This record gives sequence, structure tokens and C-alpha cells, in this order.
Amino acid sequence: MNRFLSEDEALDLISRGAVGRLGCIDQDEPYVVPINYLLEERSIYSHSLPGRKLDAMRSQPRVCLQVDLVDDDLHWRSAIAFGRFEEIRGQGARQTVLGKLLARFPRLTPVESMIVQDAAAPDSIVFRIVVDRVTGVEES
Amino acid sequence: MNRFLSEDEALDLISRGAVGRLGCIDQDEPYVVPINYLLEERSIYSHSLPGRKLDAMRSQPRVCLQVDLVDDDLHWRSAIAFGRFEEIRGQGARQTVLGKLLARFPRLTPVESMIVQDAAAPDSIVFRIVVDRVTGVEES
Repeated sequence: MNRFLSEDEALDLISRGAVGRLGCIDQDEPYVVPINYLLEERSIYSHSLPGRKLDAMRSQPRVCLQVDLVDDDLHWRSAIAFGRFEEIRGQGARQTVLGKLLARFPRLTPVESMIVQDAAAPDSIVFRIVVDRVTGVEES
Repeated sequence: MNRFLSEDEALDLISRGAVGRLGCIDQDEPYVVPINYLLEERSIYSHSLPGRKLDAMRSQPRVCLQVDLVDDDLHWRSAIAFGRFEEIRGQGARQTVLGKLLARFPRLTPVESMIVQDAAAPDSIVFRIVVDRVTGVEES
């Protein structure tokens, strides 16, 4: 049986996940990549090195994050949050977000751990998705 | 260490996966959903009930499928296949594809199993993604 999740249920699924699939539009083509993230007050926080994903989000800020919990083919939940990409540029805010990501994902690479010490390091871009819509489905 | 996968490595990862994340564009917004699929000769086969995902693919046939294998945050592979959505309408071809999907995913719902017996059942849409580009990354 399929049923739609309420917005609270969908947000709960996203808040408990650690790996989501970020969907963005790159030159009129969909592009999907796995990311680690944190959900906090309807914003999804993450970070990335420069590259295709960031170029795409900068040029088309409408993005989504899909998160699922699959027990088996007949028992799963999937949620999707839609929102607007926004870079976090202030050094204090960058440090705060990277610190939280490091606390949640202690296996960040050494480069990323270093950036937490020195948020001015230009290479890693910290961003959030300001969520404006969340939906979800459950099969159980 | 990150490195790019060769096209053969990326296709191999996709062929061994069972759940992928389909990315499509729905009214200028990215949309991502998990699907079961089969890869055969550079085509990705799947099926779906009518709904948002199908509406999106019919109106914007450029789609992608992202597949990953995550051991932990520092050891993972991810591949993405880009291509063109194409519905499979012939009754024989529908039956063949649904039969293969059922063989691979024995836990298809009873409705879907019934459709394999009667591919004329109109509800389930069988489709493929004709892949024209594959990329991938590995962190290890």
C-alpha cells in the first residue's frame, strides 16, 4: 500500500538521513549527486568543492534533495524537499556550519577538517537549500 | 582520493545496482525518485504507474539515473547515466521487459505481476532510458 507522507513525516525522514541525492539542473539536463547534509529549521546545509554541481546550482538555484529509507522493495519511504540554493559566505557562518557537519560526519576528509579550522579557505563552498516544499511517499 | 571512473567502470556499477535515483525536470524544477531498473545494452529499463514522474519525462525527455555504492563516507562510488526517455508501447516488448523486471525483482507488487500476464493492462507504463553519456567518480 502506498500512502503520502505528511509534511512533518517527510521532514522527519530527511532529518534522520545522512546521505541524500541532490537534484539540480545543469544546462537543461537533470543532474543528481549524493551528498551528506544536515537539516536545521527547514534549511538543508552542505558543502562542496567547486565543480559541475556548484556551477549548476549557481546558474539554476531551484534544487531538490531526495532521501529514502529502504527496507526492501515493498517497504520503503522516500521524501523530497524542494527549495532554493544559497551560498553561505560569511566566515563565522561558514565555520559554524562546517563545525556541525564535522560533528555529524566525523569522517570528513582531512582537507575538510582543516577548513573547519580556517573557514577562509576558499576551496570548499558552504551552502544551504532553503526548503519551501516537502513531499513524501511510503510503501508498507 | 577521488578519481573519475572510466565509462566501462561506470556502466558496470550501474549494471550491478538495483535501486537508482531517476532525475528528471518537472516544470523547470529538478525532481528525483528512487526506481528499480535493469541495464541492458546501454538502455535502462523500468516501469511506472502514471503520475508526476511520467508527466515530467514525457514533457522533458532528457533524464538521468544516478547509482551509487557507499561503503562509508570515505569509500564510495557513484555513476550517472544521461539519456532520453522513451516509452515502450508494443505489447510483446512490454511483456518481455516486465518479465525481466519480475525475474530480477521478484517482489514486484501483485498488480505488477498480473501485468506481466497481461501486458495490455494500461496502467503500468514501461519505459527505457536510451543512454548516451555515462560518468562516475570513486572515493577510496
